[in-house]
Amino acid sequence: MPTQEISQRHALVLRAVRRLLRRGAMRNLAKMVNTMRPVDVAKMLRHLDDVSDQRIVFGLVTRTEGRADILADLDEDSAVGVFIEVARAEQLDILETLDPDDAADLIGMLPADLSGELLEQMPDADSDDVVGLLSYEEETAGGIMTPDFLAFREDTDAQSVITHLQQAGDAEMVFYIYVVDEQNILKGVMSLRDLLLVSPKTRLGDVMHSPVITAQVDMDQEAVARLTARYNLLAIPVVEHDGRLVGFITVDDVIDVMRDEATEDMLKMSGTTVESEYTLSVGSLKAAGMRLPWLLVNVIGGIAGAWVLVQFASTLEAALVLTAFIPISMALGGSLGLQSATIMVRGLATGSIEMDDVRRVFIREVRVGALVGVTCGVLVGVVASFWHDPWLGLVVGVSLFIASCVAVITGTLAPVAFLRLCIDPAISSGPLVTMVNDLTGLTIYLGLATTMLSLQGAPLT
Amino acid sequence: MPTQEISQRHALVLRAVRRLLRRGAMRNLAKMVNTMRPVDVAKMLRHLDDVSDQRIVFGLVTRTEGRADILADLDEDSAVGVFIEVARAEQLDILETLDPDDAADLIGMLPADLSGELLEQMPDADSDDVVGLLSYEEETAGGIMTPDFLAFREDTDAQSVITHLQQAGDAEMVFYIYVVDEQNILKGVMSLRDLLLVSPKTRLGDVMHSPVITAQVDMDQEAVARLTARYNLLAIPVVEHDGRLVGFITVDDVIDVMRDEATEDMLKMSGTTVESEYTLSVGSLKAAGMRLPWLLVNVIGGIAGAWVLVQFASTLEAALVLTAFIPISMALGGSLGLQSATIMVRGLATGSIEMDDVRRVFIREVRVGALVGVTCGVLVGVVASFWHDPWLGLVVGVSLFIASCVAVITGTLAPVAFLRLCIDPAISSGPLVTMVNDLTGLTIYLGLATTMLSLQGAPLT
Repeated sequence: MPTQEISQRHALVLRAVRRLLRRGAMRNLAKMVNTMRPVDVAKMLRHLDDVSDQRIVFGLVTRTEGRADILADLDEDSAVGVFIEVARAEQLDILETLDPDDAADLIGMLPADLSGELLEQMPDADSDDVVGLLSYEEETAGGIMTPDFLAFREDTDAQSVITHLQQAGDAEMVFYIYVVDEQNILKGVMSLRDLLLVSPKTRLGDVMHSPVITAQVDMDQEAVARLTARYNLLAIPVVEHDGRLVGFITVDDVIDVMRDEATEDMLKMSGTTVESEYTLSVGSLKAAGMRLPWLLVNVIGGIAGAWVLVQFASTLEAALVLTAFIPISMALGGSLGLQSATIMVRGLATGSIEMDDVRRVFIREVRVGALVGVTCGVLVGVVASFWHDPWLGLVVGVSLFIASCVAVITGTLAPVAFLRLCIDPAISSGPLVTMVNDLTGLTIYLGLATTMLSLQGAPLT
Repeated sequence: MPTQEISQRHALVLRAVRRLLRRGAMRNLAKMVNTMRPVDVAKMLRHLDDVSDQRIVFGLVTRTEGRADILADLDEDSAVGVFIEVARAEQLDILETLDPDDAADLIGMLPADLSGELLEQMPDADSDDVVGLLSYEEETAGGIMTPDFLAFREDTDAQSVITHLQQAGDAEMVFYIYVVDEQNILKGVMSLRDLLLVSPKTRLGDVMHSPVITAQVDMDQEAVARLTARYNLLAIPVVEHDGRLVGFITVDDVIDVMRDEATEDMLKMSGTTVESEYTLSVGSLKAAGMRLPWLLVNVIGGIAGAWVLVQFASTLEAALVLTAFIPISMALGGSLGLQSATIMVRGLATGSIEMDDVRRVFIREVRVGALVGVTCGVLVGVVASFWHDPWLGLVVGVSLFIASCVAVITGTLAPVAFLRLCIDPAISSGPLVTMVNDLTGLTIYLGLATTMLSLQGAPLT
C-alpha cells in the first residue's frame, strides 16, 4: 500500500523528533528541523501531542520564511498555539512574509485583541490587503483568493512585462499575466509561456486570450474548484460583479478545497456534523457533541420503531417467529437507500449528474431496486420457507421486494429535494435516508404479515 | 446553491442541442458546437441519451484539435462510441493531436482489432510512446504520466532553453524545465519563471533546484496525487527506479485522480462496488450487479440476526415488549460505528491520520463512544421506563451504552486492520462495520435482557 510507504517515512521522522525532545537534544533537533521542508515540519508538528512540544520545535526554525510556510500549512489550533508565543517583532515579520491570503487566514483565527494589535502595527499596505480579504465570506472565492496579482494594460509590450517580472521579488507562483483596462476591468489573459513565444515589442492586447474564465468574489469555493478543474486552469482570476479584477486563486488552493469538500461530504453522509474540521486536536467532549445530533435521529427512529412494533403487538403475539426477520426487513432497505443516495449526492457534487439527468437516473435506480429486491426477496424467502413455513417465506420475500423499490426511490429523490431547498444534499443521505428506509421496511414487513395472517385466518406457528 | 447556477447554464445548452437535433437544424447546431469550448461539448455529449445523437454532434465539430480535446474529456463508453465511427484518416489525425497519455487512454479502451490496426498505421514515434505508456499499470504514475517532457543537460544555458521553447510547437503545458545527465538521470528542476530571472548565459546546473520531488513509475496514483498536493507542485516528474526521467504528471490530471479516488471511496463506503466508474451510461442490470455483493452482506447479516433472535425466543415469549426496542438496539451501534470508520478511512486516505496516531484516535473514539452511550442510554432508558417499566429501561439503557463502546472500537480498528492486510479500508467501513455492530447491538440487548429476567425471576410483562 503506497499510503504505508509515505507514512512509514513520516513515522520515522516523528519518532526521531519525539526522542530528541525527550532527551532535550536541542542542537540535533534544530539541525534536523532546519533541513526539513516546511510542509514536512508542519505535518510533523500537527502530530505532536501537546502545544508546548509544538512551540519548542517551531522555535528552533531559524528562517522567518520557513516559519511562515510552516504556519500556512498548520491546522487552526496548532497554528494559533505556536504563533501567539512568538515575539511581537517576529510575529510582524511572519505576517509580512506570508502571502496575503494566508496572513488573512492566520489573523482571522487569532483572538480579537491580538489580531487588532497586529493589524495596527502592520505596514498599511499589508493590513489593508488583510482587512480587505477578511471582509469576504470564508468559503467563497473572495475568502480564498490572494490579491497579489500581476496585471498590465493592453498597450504594454511583452518586453516590459518580462523586465517587470525580473525586477519583482518572489511573488505568489506566477503562471498567468492578466490584462486590464483603466478601470481595472479584466480584458484578457496570457500564460508565461505565451509571453516567451512572442516578439519583445508585441502589445499584450494583440495576443491575449479573451474572454477569460473567471470566478465572481461571492462564488462558493466548491464551484470555483469545479470550474478550475473543468477547464484545467493553473489559476483562476477573481472579479467583482462589475468585472474588476481583485485577485486570483491558484490550483494548489483549489486542490485543498476539493479535498476538504470531499471529506466534509463523507463525514456528513456518515452523520458526523462538521462545522469546523474534525481533526486530531478536537477533544472527545467536543467530538461527541459534533456526532450526537445525527445519532439522535437514530434514537428518534428507534423510538418510532418501538411505536411501530407496539402497533403490531397482536400480530407478533400470534406469530413470534416473525420477529426473526425484523433485522433483515430493516437493514436491506436502509443500505440500498444509502447506496442510491450516495450515488446522487456525489454525482450532484462533481457535476456528473445534472438536474436534467435526474429522471434518467431515477428510472435506472427503480430498475436496480426491483432487480435487487427480486434477488434478495427470493433468496431470503426461500430460506424462511425451509426454515419455518412457506407463508413466512412469502411474507419476507414480498416485503423485501417492496422495501427495496421504496428505498431506491427515497434514496434518489431525497438529495434532489434537499438541493432544491438549498440544503446540502450530503446531509440527507446518511442518517435520514437510512432511518426512513429502516422504518419503511419494518412497517411493510409487519403490515404485510398482518394482512396475510388475517387472510389465512390462522397464526403462523 | 452555486451547483445550480452552473448546472442551469448547462441545462439550457443541453435543451437547445436536443431541440436542434429533433428539428434536424444541423447548420445551427454546427455553429453552436463550434463556438463552444471542447470541454463543454464533452460535458454536453455525456448527457445526450444515445450514441447516434452523440455521433451526429461530434461529427459537426470541424477542427481536429477540438475533436481531440473532446475525446480526452469524454467517459469511456461515449468516447469509444463516437471514435469508432470516425473515418480512419481522421482517427489517425486525432491520435496524433492528442497528448500521448490521452492517446494511450483512448487506444486502451478500443476493441483489440481496431487498436492494433491504428498502432500499425500511426507514425512509429507516436505508436512507441503509446505502447510504452500502455505497458504501465493503469492506476500508477506510469499509467497517467505523459512522456513529452522537456529536459536539458546541466551545461545548457538559459538562452538556449528559451530559444528551444520558442521553436517547439504547442507541447503539454510547460511550467518546469527538467535537468538530466547523459544517462537521462534527473538532476534538478527549475520553473519557467526561474528561467526568466537569470541572465541568458547562466548554466542550468548552477541555478537548478535539487533534490527534486519525484514519483516512481509504479507508485499508486493516489500517492502521486497526495505528494503533488502536499508540496504544491504544478507537475511532478516520473522516474524509473534507477532515477531515469521517463515522464511527468500535470496538476490537472492530479485533480482528476483526487476526485475519482474520493468518489470511489464514497461509493465503496456505501457498499457500492466500483470496478469501473458508476456513470450515467451504466445499464440497470450491470448497476444491480455492482451493488448486490455488499447488499448480500446485509442479507447474511439479516439471516444471522434471525438466528440470534431465535436463540432468544424464550426470552421474547416471556416478555414480548422487548421486541419494541430491537430497532434501536440495532441502529445506534451501526451508525456510531460507521461514523468512527468514516473518520478513520478518510483520515488514513488524506494522511491526516497516520499509523502512529491510531492509538490517540482510538482513545478519543472510546471516550466519544462512552459519552454518546451514556447520553443515548439514559435518554432511551428513561423513555422505556415511563413507557413500560424501569427494568426494561435499565436493560435498554445499559445495552445501548455497551453497544456504543463496542461500535466505536470495531469502527476504529477495522479500517486499520484492513490497511495492514493491504485491503482498501474504504471497503470495511460501510456494510461490514454496520453489519457487525448491528448484530453486536442486538446480541448485547437480548443477552442482557435474558440475564436480567433470570435474576428478576419474573417476566417483564
